[in-house]
Amino acid sequence: MNLQETWNPKLVSFIESAQGSDFPIQHLPLGIFKPQMDGNYRVGVAIGHFVLDLAMLDDFGLFDEYNWARKKLFNRLKLNRFMALGRKASQELRCRLVELLSADNPDLRDHQELRTHAFHRMEDITMSLPVEIGDYTDFYSSKEHATNVGIMFRGKDNALQPNWLHLPVGYHGRASTIVKSGTPIVRPSGQTKSDTEENPSFGACRLLDFELEMGFFIGSGNKMGEPISINDAEDHIWGMVVVNDWSARDIQKWEYVPLGPFLAKNFATSISPWVVTMEALEPFRTPGPVQNPKPLAYLDQQGAHAFDIKLDVSIKTSQSETFESISSSNFKYLYWSMAQQLAHHTSSGCEMRTGDLLASGTISGPTPDSYGSLLELTWRGASPITLKTGEQRTFLKDGDSLRMSAFCQNENYRIGFGEVVGEIVPAVHVQ
Amino acid sequence: MNLQETWNPKLVSFIESAQGSDFPIQHLPLGIFKPQMDGNYRVGVAIGHFVLDLAMLDDFGLFDEYNWARKKLFNRLKLNRFMALGRKASQELRCRLVELLSADNPDLRDHQELRTHAFHRMEDITMSLPVEIGDYTDFYSSKEHATNVGIMFRGKDNALQPNWLHLPVGYHGRASTIVKSGTPIVRPSGQTKSDTEENPSFGACRLLDFELEMGFFIGSGNKMGEPISINDAEDHIWGMVVVNDWSARDIQKWEYVPLGPFLAKNFATSISPWVVTMEALEPFRTPGPVQNPKPLAYLDQQGAHAFDIKLDVSIKTSQSETFESISSSNFKYLYWSMAQQLAHHTSSGCEMRTGDLLASGTISGPTPDSYGSLLELTWRGASPITLKTGEQRTFLKDGDSLRMSAFCQNENYRIGFGEVVGEIVPAVHVQ
Repeated sequence: MNLQETWNPKLVSFIESAQGSDFPIQHLPLGIFKPQMDGNYRVGVAIGHFVLDLAMLDDFGLFDEYNWARKKLFNRLKLNRFMALGRKASQELRCRLVELLSADNPDLRDHQELRTHAFHRMEDITMSLPVEIGDYTDFYSSKEHATNVGIMFRGKDNALQPNWLHLPVGYHGRASTIVKSGTPIVRPSGQTKSDTEENPSFGACRLLDFELEMGFFIGSGNKMGEPISINDAEDHIWGMVVVNDWSARDIQKWEYVPLGPFLAKNFATSISPWVVTMEALEPFRTPGPVQNPKPLAYLDQQGAHAFDIKLDVSIKTSQSETFESISSSNFKYLYWSMAQQLAHHTSSGCEMRTGDLLASGTISGPTPDSYGSLLELTWRGASPITLKTGEQRTFLKDGDSLRMSAFCQNENYRIGFGEVVGEIVPAVHVQ
Repeated sequence: MNLQETWNPKLVSFIESAQGSDFPIQHLPLGIFKPQMDGNYRVGVAIGHFVLDLAMLDDFGLFDEYNWARKKLFNRLKLNRFMALGRKASQELRCRLVELLSADNPDLRDHQELRTHAFHRMEDITMSLPVEIGDYTDFYSSKEHATNVGIMFRGKDNALQPNWLHLPVGYHGRASTIVKSGTPIVRPSGQTKSDTEENPSFGACRLLDFELEMGFFIGSGNKMGEPISINDAEDHIWGMVVVNDWSARDIQKWEYVPLGPFLAKNFATSISPWVVTMEALEPFRTPGPVQNPKPLAYLDQQGAHAFDIKLDVSIKTSQSETFESISSSNFKYLYWSMAQQLAHHTSSGCEMRTGDLLASGTISGPTPDSYGSLLELTWRGASPITLKTGEQRTFLKDGDSLRMSAFCQNENYRIGFGEVVGEIVPAVHVQ
């Protein structure tokens, strides 16, 4: 089985629930799971309604043809050790898993003992943060988002800052508060000052927002002082997750001059649990927006470098029983590609380590129903959203749950990212 | 021996070189070292001209009265495991080490076997980065520095931003490129645009600068969502190092709007190898600047909260054989205290983990000879520094070595931080 064959839309798995699901045999995202009843966290792959235990497959010798086999790389609390091997190992694993899961291959299909122990139903497992994240960077790569925010704060004529079309603007984020989907989000407190107040005050955030983003993890890194070139950048991009960059707009407005967002962002960032490999995404590659002016040579990427990934944001309040969609966007809208972000980030010589997370920035599309934050959807609170319950929202209230999900779809199959969910819980009283 | 007694100026060690040195018995900073000839990195303490191997003392049972003894906490590549125990364990270690190193205590003094193996001469060891740093934050806490930069970029009337006197402004930095003293610093490349150019270009940084800073490490952390109050903050501050926050001024100028410094800072940050405990610094506590307006309650700290730490910056060019001092500053000039920085940082609920580094921002004093960056010392390059060799400097050139050092001095003894040194090496050619 070679890589090209793993994209064959006609592939069928003996796991029947794979066909037509978010996790077909062409997908195979990796995550960290444990059975709810017992056991330690370890690496698994999603297939249909099941998670397949890769540590067990390795123990049974099913990866013995590869030089990374039997090294306990899957019997780990995080994916980092395997990710550090880079995309070649990831591709080898993908090819082997497609072989093993194919309907016409008896090796795993007919191995009753292994099948009984290695497959776990999705509803019987718990997932963990998949990666140990050393450093987290957040970009600002949606032209629509940067323009919307610019219009709100500086007016239409100066919406984009002079540097924006020349480089992917970004800033360093906080790694300690990146949490897995489902983690409750405590409303942050902070110092704010409205334009009408003479002095700032301290209290619970009043303008709590989400930001719809996607992020990618570094596989193999680089040495400090040795930039990753634009042509090599994709070799270092291992896989992707959905990211909710929770944001406290009132804190941000007062604190961010002149060194950028700080407490407005560092209270929480939520990510989806399955890491979708770049190999799974390859069939969904698509041209990105035309870049004008032409980027400088160190950022000039040839070929199609965007990915067609459909994105949804839904909300559920304490008064509703179901999630209601409030935005639909697409990863392909982003002006700057992941490779450009990475080449720029390391152009200074900055070292990337396995597991570092680089997020896109809010992914807003061209129309108001595709905006990736409440700041934009409600235009700074001026146009509240009315939900089916009749409730209105400008920013998030306590008890609101926010869900982001993503998938790629072609005429043959669909691959899902799963979702990242978080419920807002009340601020804690300080002192 | 209680903590108060460890500050007795009359204490004398049987290690005679301790008396009058930068590392007297009242000091006892911790670091990670290995003998140059053999062995693994482990925890050591500086005393006089020697480093004392704490892993060996622990093996010999000299810490058996404490509940952290015999847990291999010193047989580690980093200090984190011991730091995680917080300041109580640090104080117990200090008290015990003062006992063991005192001239009148025979336990170690007369234990010839242990003395032979546990003490290493400073010139026979190599030191390592002392702490595994999860997240790195850089503040902007010197009023003089913020004012100088403000005057240069916005004029005298708007020098300080409106938020500056109300909160310790800070931003997230890059942990992956924090390096130990002595690591060569590759001149970064990056995208820049001068005011006279129509378009940006990419190339080696032309305005490479240092920033004289100090940083503190977190001992015991907090849970996400649970702020550290201003009254508890000092309990979480474990020890300090000298920090050189290397800065690329031309890259910074073009990139930093609106999300703050990014590539201008993330290519390298150098720190000194010895972590000076807060217990050693206690006798040098001093009132800080008067804060007006009075800080909000969550930042309102009682008592003297600055420390009198003398700072020096020296340069050596490829044409000179010795370092020449170009700035003398003091940690006590900082407007915002470490406790205020930490209370502010966690006020959002941001989680601190053992080993996180929080740096002060450039420490500039009130007079031009105390400015902590070339940006200020040469006033944006308008007033070059003339060195003893006759050479002039506006910003750093390839081959320049920059050294920062720090010490506390009272009438009885002096405690030294050691130094943080880095030599600028030429930019690498990209593509």
